[in-house]
Amino acid sequence: MSTITRVDIQDIRFPTSADLDGSDAMNPDPDYSAAYLSIITDAEDGLAGNGFVFTIGRGNDVQAAGISALTGYLVGRNTEGILADLGGFWKTLVHDSQLRWLGPEKGVMHMAVGAVINALWDLRAKREGKPLWLLLAEMTPEELVELVDFRYLTDALTPKEALEILRKAVPGQEERIAQLRSVGYEAYTTTPGWLGYSDEKLTRLCHEAIADGFQQIKLKVGADLDDDIRRMRVAREVCGPDFRIATDANQRWDVAQAIEWMKHLAPFNPAWIEEPTSPDDILGHAAIAKAIAPIPVATGEHVQNRIIFKQMLQANSLQVLQMDAARVAGVNENIAILLLAAKFGVPVCPHAGGVGLCEAVQHLSMFDFVSVSGSMDGRMIEFVDHLHEHFDTPVDVHDGRYWPPSEPGAGTEIIQSSITDFLYPHGSVWA
Amino acid sequence: MSTITRVDIQDIRFPTSADLDGSDAMNPDPDYSAAYLSIITDAEDGLAGNGFVFTIGRGNDVQAAGISALTGYLVGRNTEGILADLGGFWKTLVHDSQLRWLGPEKGVMHMAVGAVINALWDLRAKREGKPLWLLLAEMTPEELVELVDFRYLTDALTPKEALEILRKAVPGQEERIAQLRSVGYEAYTTTPGWLGYSDEKLTRLCHEAIADGFQQIKLKVGADLDDDIRRMRVAREVCGPDFRIATDANQRWDVAQAIEWMKHLAPFNPAWIEEPTSPDDILGHAAIAKAIAPIPVATGEHVQNRIIFKQMLQANSLQVLQMDAARVAGVNENIAILLLAAKFGVPVCPHAGGVGLCEAVQHLSMFDFVSVSGSMDGRMIEFVDHLHEHFDTPVDVHDGRYWPPSEPGAGTEIIQSSITDFLYPHGSVWA
Repeated sequence: MSTITRVDIQDIRFPTSADLDGSDAMNPDPDYSAAYLSIITDAEDGLAGNGFVFTIGRGNDVQAAGISALTGYLVGRNTEGILADLGGFWKTLVHDSQLRWLGPEKGVMHMAVGAVINALWDLRAKREGKPLWLLLAEMTPEELVELVDFRYLTDALTPKEALEILRKAVPGQEERIAQLRSVGYEAYTTTPGWLGYSDEKLTRLCHEAIADGFQQIKLKVGADLDDDIRRMRVAREVCGPDFRIATDANQRWDVAQAIEWMKHLAPFNPAWIEEPTSPDDILGHAAIAKAIAPIPVATGEHVQNRIIFKQMLQANSLQVLQMDAARVAGVNENIAILLLAAKFGVPVCPHAGGVGLCEAVQHLSMFDFVSVSGSMDGRMIEFVDHLHEHFDTPVDVHDGRYWPPSEPGAGTEIIQSSITDFLYPHGSVWA
Repeated sequence: MSTITRVDIQDIRFPTSADLDGSDAMNPDPDYSAAYLSIITDAEDGLAGNGFVFTIGRGNDVQAAGISALTGYLVGRNTEGILADLGGFWKTLVHDSQLRWLGPEKGVMHMAVGAVINALWDLRAKREGKPLWLLLAEMTPEELVELVDFRYLTDALTPKEALEILRKAVPGQEERIAQLRSVGYEAYTTTPGWLGYSDEKLTRLCHEAIADGFQQIKLKVGADLDDDIRRMRVAREVCGPDFRIATDANQRWDVAQAIEWMKHLAPFNPAWIEEPTSPDDILGHAAIAKAIAPIPVATGEHVQNRIIFKQMLQANSLQVLQMDAARVAGVNENIAILLLAAKFGVPVCPHAGGVGLCEAVQHLSMFDFVSVSGSMDGRMIEFVDHLHEHFDTPVDVHDGRYWPPSEPGAGTEIIQSSITDFLYPHGSVWA
């Protein structure tokens, strides 16, 4: 038996705006950041649980304050009790009646809950000596359903339906685990496509992506139509007619504008259009999807919770669901979202990049393959090749694929020297 | 010419949980609170602009941190420049590309923008020596349209349509201002209906509401069906068959449950059901509204922004729109919401109560009557009779009606002694 003795919360920022990595139509100069926490116990194993909210700079301190508001639920509490009932603990945090007012279930407070929940899963996985994806994959359907809060979901997904989905995926799990280890999980790369890059750099990076074994790249669009047409043409010429080139507008457009813009990009056969408009606009996405079919609409990295995803599935707003490890309230809510996607037969292709999002979200896709959808068809995980060196268990991506982590934990631990150097505003990089 | 020299931000909390005022199915023990700011300039007039985010206790410090993140846009800046272009300044704050990540346009950061925007409107109204409702009512349609950000709205409301709505409301404005001053604006009261009250207290407060001239009360429901049926029966017997009794579930139900529960309350002829389910569930509200018609669905106090309201209007999710002064990004976004409601012909009956929400939101309803919808039909402002004594210009509600403020400002200034006493955690009430 152990007690949580301390929660350390740190404001860590990487000065990525300096070289336009991560520049898109809505985010011209992000400084990729993490509001990071470590849950410390008095257990002899010395293990800590780590989690974070990814932000892009200013406001990372506000996000850290949001996490701080939850420490009263942790410090002094019995560790094993919390870890044994993460479904119940999720509800305790999300439905705190006073903190709930600040959302409800959205924005800073909801992401703060997500960071805490993810840190607890990291601790549990470390204690069990397993990578998170395998820990989840080995849970029974009954145990998994207990992790999910079905409030506001039952008109689309009941506990009984969830159980059926999970039970249906039990046969073949061992084979799928073996398959994952032998062939990995497809990655696609956003590295070539940032808006700030020249055509020469785009060309070079497209060649590199193909050489690295990727089968899909993604181009940021939405700032200037002529530029987008030219860049799509360059990418299509370099990559050939059959290579998949996705596009991403980062919420830049209104509904009519999205439809019009995509008419001009349609001749280049985009694999999808991502975030064509506000992530809150369920009906807008549905109108766009209907108008530009068969080009699929993809969205999710800014979708605030399972309730919006539920409606996007009900309304045919998206054909590709892009869950994010650090936007909703952590692993538990993402299991709900995987179940919703499975119910509606929509593939999940997680958002990643940023700081640590690749490390974290790969576990969810791999768990989905083993225990929820049971399929890798039409599914892949975004990959951006930066900032991995700051993580204790960086992703292993090669030959265009993610390879399943074998180290215990959720992939969310930042190495100590990076914490020290990038601490804002007094770390050596910022001082 | 003056400069903003300082922004004071304070965490003010009232220990309202002690006597169950404000207790409902989701919020059993709120401590009504304000994350409060004062914008101070070096102008000789000595006027400050005040605004706040209303919260219900824990997390008020997180909300204050959100406001702090915006002070860089204020301190050292020219006051007149900002006040002359509040439409442009709204966009600057809401579309800060880094802070935007924390929403976007929802939760802590969006409400923080709202508090800042409202404080600037308070300052501008004080400088012009007018109450906010009159300041807005005297602006031209062209000036008003400049205040609105139409991003993500144009599939439902274009600037041209907004201009047409406002121009149509110009004739008769003088008469409507005179009418407002002579007959006031209808109020309804939530005071009798909190969940924690006994049937005797409910009965007594219903009698008092009628004696005070109210024509509508509201009962909190959703915790226990038998209790709700009994309380509705008590209220209906006391108030008579023609009196309006609204109900409010504070997001307690899933879709099917809301429909089922309201079948049992329908015999008591509820004036509306408020917040039957998650404020994010546009399609869920639409399904409920369709199933329980002709009982109207009302919602809005937790609706995060104009984009969700737009869809609720598009989908017939609500028949009564309950804007809130401190949930969305301030006066500017609420003007957008008033315009959307006018476009769709839906009456706006604002949420109020809490701390200062009555004081603030009355200005928006009165402006709506004079310059947007041009109508008071089916429209009223919620009223809860507590905490008004803490405000510099408390509401004037008598004979069941709000009477238009004549003092300059937006009604959002808290008196100094209340700030001192209720400052958390070191004010005299808390220490």
